[in-house]
Order: sequence, then C-alpha cells, then structure tokens
Amino acid sequence: MADCLFCGIAAGEIPADVVYRDDSVLAFRDIDPKAPVHILIIPRKHVAGVMDLEDEDGAIMGQAMTVARRVAADSGVSESGFRIVVNTGQDAAQSVQHIHLHLLGGRALSWPPG
Amino acid sequence: MADCLFCGIAAGEIPADVVYRDDSVLAFRDIDPKAPVHILIIPRKHVAGVMDLEDEDGAIMGQAMTVARRVAADSGVSESGFRIVVNTGQDAAQSVQHIHLHLLGGRALSWPPG
Repeated sequence: MADCLFCGIAAGEIPADVVYRDDSVLAFRDIDPKAPVHILIIPRKHVAGVMDLEDEDGAIMGQAMTVARRVAADSGVSESGFRIVVNTGQDAAQSVQHIHLHLLGGRALSWPPG
Repeated sequence: MADCLFCGIAAGEIPADVVYRDDSVLAFRDIDPKAPVHILIIPRKHVAGVMDLEDEDGAIMGQAMTVARRVAADSGVSESGFRIVVNTGQDAAQSVQHIHLHLLGGRALSWPPG
C-alpha cells in the first residue's frame, strides 16, 4: 500500500536490516530495539491490524509464527526464551498500521507485559 | 497430555471461565489478570511452546489469531486496542508449558512490553 512504511520495506524500497524473507513473510530488526534481540515479523500482504485479518489470512499469521520460531533460533534465543507481541490500536500504542509481530529476547522480560 | 493444566481445561476436567470454544481453539479468562480484559487463547492440541510448533501447526496458530480478533470484539476492546503476547521459555517466564496467547486490553499498555 502506498505510504505504508512496512510495505516499502517489504518491496525493498525502504532500507531495513532484514534477517529473513520468503514469498509471504519478512523479518527485520526494530530500529528502536527494547531488548538485545528485537525483530519485527510482517506478512508482505498489507493488513492494518488484527481486527482487519480476514479468515483466509489465518495461514499467513500462522506462517509468521513459524518464521518467529526460525528467527528465534537464528538469533540464539530459542533456549533462553523470548516474547512475541502484537499491538493493536491505541491502548497498545500500535505504531505502524501494517500488522507485525515483535520478537524480543536476550534478557529477562518482566510481567505484566506493559 | 496428562498433567497439563491447559489440556485439563480444554477437556473440561478443570474449571475455567471459558469465553469461546470451537473444535480446535479454546479461550478463557486468566486467573491472575493484569488488565481489565485478560484472556488466554489456546489450541486444544498440546504443543509446549513456539519452538515446538510443527509446520502443520501454522493453521492452528493462525486460527488462534482469528479467535483473538473475535474475543477482542466480544470483550469490547476492538476499538480501544489490545496486546497479544506469547511467552516462550525462561526469559519470558512462560508459566504453563502448553502454548497460549495472552490477550490484554481495557487499559493503556506501556512500552516496552516487559
């Protein structure tokens, strides 16, 4: 989608530190990391947020979750542990209106999660 | 799986405040809520955590995400916003070794998420 930061990254038009890519999913480092490992995982398809997921997008989100598993292993946090976070809307301060999974690891993460 | 709290809840053997159920996914209120809305969403299939997801489990996790969308709407937080969290392993303090999505909403959630 025009004017979408993450669509621009997915298209290769906006630079990012990409750590994984396939036909439907892209993963890259957060530019404002909150943990030693902080990676964003996005579907290439533009979906604004969780509330905009169509039923047929379930497969894409499932694939994003399996990419999270792979990214965690590649980042060395699969043994130590990690947190996946998806923000939706104002109360969660969703910053980019293109659905994304945060993967945070490499330090102890406190509870509650915000 | 025997001795798994969430398998017991899915089987109806352990009581829980269930807010949604279908053939593959169950959602119920967290017994130690950290927000006005704090619901857990689990696949009925026993998968210990993200690192144990098989590729064919992608569909289940995708379905859990679409159930999150429904639960958010039913709980009145689809407009105000909410956060989905999946903890894996020690650094994230994963408390039950049966994969689950936390859905938190009903208040402003701070950043970083733990």
